[in-house]
Formats: sequence, structure tokens, C-alpha cells
Amino acid sequence: MKPLDVLQQCLHKRVLVEMKGGRSYRGVLDAYDQHLNLVLSGAEEVVGSEVTAHAGLTLVRGDSIVYISP
Amino acid sequence: MKPLDVLQQCLHKRVLVEMKGGRSYRGVLDAYDQHLNLVLSGAEEVVGSEVTAHAGLTLVRGDSIVYISP
Amino acid sequence: MKPLDVLQQCLHKRVLVEMKGGRSYRGVLDAYDQHLNLVLSGAEEVVGSEVTAHAGLTLVRGDSIVYISP
Amino acid sequence: MKPLDVLQQCLHKRVLVEMKGGRSYRGVLDAYDQHLNLVLSGAEEVVGSEVTAHAGLTLVRGDSIVYISP
Amino acid sequence: MKPLDVLQQCLHKRVLVEMKGGRSYRGVLDAYDQHLNLVLSGAEEVVGSEVTAHAGLTLVRGDSIVYISP
Amino acid sequence: MKPLDVLQQCLHKRVLVEMKGGRSYRGVLDAYDQHLNLVLSGAEEVVGSEVTAHAGLTLVRGDSIVYISP
Amino acid sequence: MKPLDVLQQCLHKRVLVEMKGGRSYRGVLDAYDQHLNLVLSGAEEVVGSEVTAHAGLTLVRGDSIVYISP
Repeated sequence: MKPLDVLQQCLHKRVLVEMKGGRSYRGVLDAYDQHLNLVLSGAEEVVGSEVTAHAGLTLVRGDSIVYISP
Repeated sequence: MKPLDVLQQCLHKRVLVEMKGGRSYRGVLDAYDQHLNLVLSGAEEVVGSEVTAHAGLTLVRGDSIVYISP
Repeated sequence: MKPLDVLQQCLHKRVLVEMKGGRSYRGVLDAYDQHLNLVLSGAEEVVGSEVTAHAGLTLVRGDSIVYISP
Repeated sequence: MKPLDVLQQCLHKRVLVEMKGGRSYRGVLDAYDQHLNLVLSGAEEVVGSEVTAHAGLTLVRGDSIVYISP
Repeated sequence: MKPLDVLQQCLHKRVLVEMKGGRSYRGVLDAYDQHLNLVLSGAEEVVGSEVTAHAGLTLVRGDSIVYISP
Repeated sequence: MKPLDVLQQCLHKRVLVEMKGGRSYRGVLDAYDQHLNLVLSGAEEVVGSEVTAHAGLTLVRGDSIVYISP
Repeated sequence: MKPLDVLQQCLHKRVLVEMKGGRSYRGVLDAYDQHLNLVLSGAEEVVGSEVTAHAGLTLVRGDSIVYISP
């Protein structure tokens, strides 16, 4: 198994994406590529346990990501 | 679907572009490439919910982008 | 021996992953690639000697990693 | 249209170049390449709405650029 | 002689590895690659002249390294 | 014209090199390459309008450069 | 002449290496490669005009270097 296979398994499921600088996004993983660029639908910005913003469909640039968790 | 396909769907529509360092731009996506370099027309700088500057046509360098949202 | 051979030996064993910016994760190494992207299962965030969060299965982006220790 | 086509259209016209770290330059775009390295003639450093320095002909390194606006 | 030849000469000997952000590690160099990824065995974290932590076998990511000294 | 052609024209002439982090160097451009690595002879460190240090012949790494001005 | 030719001329001579983050090293240049990775022998850490540490033989990673001066 390779790390990107985990993303394949997460497709169309909710994931938590932790960003550099401390923000997190939660949403359904609709697409990814080998740079870890992600598309999240129904994306919410999360700070601690609170939802702070709704972003809807979001393309997240891979190089700002620290980790992705189902 | 790949992440850049979402940009294809956003062409000629308004998008919100969140930058590293906390600035955001809102404008119509006129062009993009595989580095996520974007061209926005009618671009506005947005801080919170306020428009702070009008930049018109803008080429945004992809590596400063955190996320793009329709 | 090359550095990535150490990761091969760590597969399915617990590792500690120290991140840029001071966070650490502990979990079982389920997968890795040549960019040092890692998949940890049963991952916990660790600050000092305290477990501060449970992240479960986690894909950690290689370029945020400082070191990996079995 | 690709993002760099916008630079082609800006050739020999005045552009505003916003840099990482908050500085901006204004000048006539004389040349560019695919890394977004730019040559500005008659370049001025701009802070807010004030011109703070005159740099004349300037080669600006692409990876310090946030956005370019005509 | 090329810089990596010095690492070849350091194999199985103690080295000091100075990291970006101010931490240092001391340990026996067991492996390296062309990205300066290193494997240290018996690794210790060093702050000033004090040993602050024992990490055992450690894979250190090359792009966090400032210098390596035998 | 491409941006590096400007460096060709600056060869053996005095240039000002603005660095990331706020330092500047002034000196005669003796050599450059496609990474914008530069060799300056008679180089001086400049802060504001004051010369703060003399560095003589200096190889400046391109990725620390913000702009180069004749 | 290309910038790396200056390093060729500096081989086996003392150089000053200014690093990102403000540290400097002084030592005899024993080796270099195209990434500007350097090997310094008899290396000393220098702050202002004071020698603050002796590092002996040191492999300095090129991407932490700002400039190299004979």
C-alpha cells in the first residue's frame, strides 16, 4: 500500500484536513491528485471543535496540507 | 475527476481565492494552469466580509494559494 | 542501506513523527512513499509526554516532517 | 487562455506587482518568463498609495510574487 | 571530492546534525541519500551542551538540515 | 527579450540586489546563471542609504533574491 | 564565467558563508556541488566579528546559504 491509496479509500467520504498555520477543513473528498491537491465538497473551516466558516466546494492546494484524516 | 477539473468547471464564474498570509481575492476565473496560477477579472481583495481593494484583472501566483472555492 | 530502508523496517510498527512547527504524531506506520508521505494508523498527537488528540488513520505529508523515529 | 497569456497582453504596459512580505512595485512590463520572473522599467516601490523608492529597470524574481495586475 | 563523499567517510561514525529552527541531533550515521536524508542510531537531541532527549534510531529529513559535522 | 537578457546587459556593471529579509548588496555583476545565482565583485552590504559592510567578491544564491536593479 | 566557477577558484581557500537566519561560517572550502552544498574544514561559527563555535569539518546544505564570499 502507498499513502495515496488511503486517499483512494477516502473518496466520497468525510475527511479532516489540517493545514499549515493552524486551520482545518472538514468535507467530503471528491478528488485528489499526486500533489495532494484535494477537492472537498460541503467543506467547513474548523477551529478546535467549532465550525467557523462554510466554504462549500473547495480546491485545497496540496503544499499547504499537514495531514489528512478520514 | 481530478482537482483541476473543478477549476475547469469554475471558468468564467466567480471564485474566492484564499492566500497564504491571510488575504483573499474574489473575482471571475478567466484562466488557470497546472501550477494553479489563476487569472481573475474584476478581482477584489476581501478581509473578513469587507472589500478592501479593487485590483481588476489579476494574475495570482499558484504557490501563494491555500484554497479556491466557487 | 538507504534512509528509506529504515521506513521499510518500521512498517506495521509504532513510530514517532516530529513535525515542523513542534507537533508530533505517534502511530503504526502502514505506508510510506519516496516523498516521506506516511500513513499512520491509530495516530495520536503528542505534546511533550501527553497525548493531546486522537486522529486515527492519518496521511501525513512528507514535507512537514522533521524526523521519524521507531 | 492560459495565465501567462495575460502577461503577454501586459507587455510594454504598466503593471502592479504585489510581493510576498507586503511590498509592491509599479512599472512597465518589458519581459517575463515561465517562472514569472519579470523585468519592469521605470519601476517604483509603492507602500499603500505612496511611492517610496525609484528602482528604474528591475528584474523581479518570480517566486517572491503574489500577484500581478495591469 | 564532492560534499556527499564526506558523508560516505562519516558512515558508522558519530555526527552532529544542526537543524533549521535551532535543534541539533547527535548520533551514529547509519545511512544517507542524495537529498541528505539521514539515519542516525543512538540519536540524542542536544540544546547547547546538554542532551535533552534520546530518540534512538532516527530518520532525519534532509530539507530540515542546516549542516552536518563529524 | 527574456528577463535573463537584462542580466546579460548588466554584466560588468554595478547592480543593486535586494534580498529576502531586507538586506541589499551592491556590486559589479561578474557572472549569473539561470537560477539567478550571481557573482558580485566589490560587493557592499547596504541598509537604507548606508554601506554597512564590504564583502568583496560574493556569490549570492538566487533563491534569496527578491529583485536585481542596474 | 558562471557563478560556480567562483567556487572552483575558492577551493582549498578560506571562505565566509552567510546563512539564512543570520549565522555565518568561516572555513576552508574543500568541496562543493551544483546545489551549493559545501564542505568546510576548520569551520568556525561567526557572529559579528566574534568566533562563537568551532565545528571542524562541516557539510553545509546549499539551500540554507545566502551568500559565499572568499
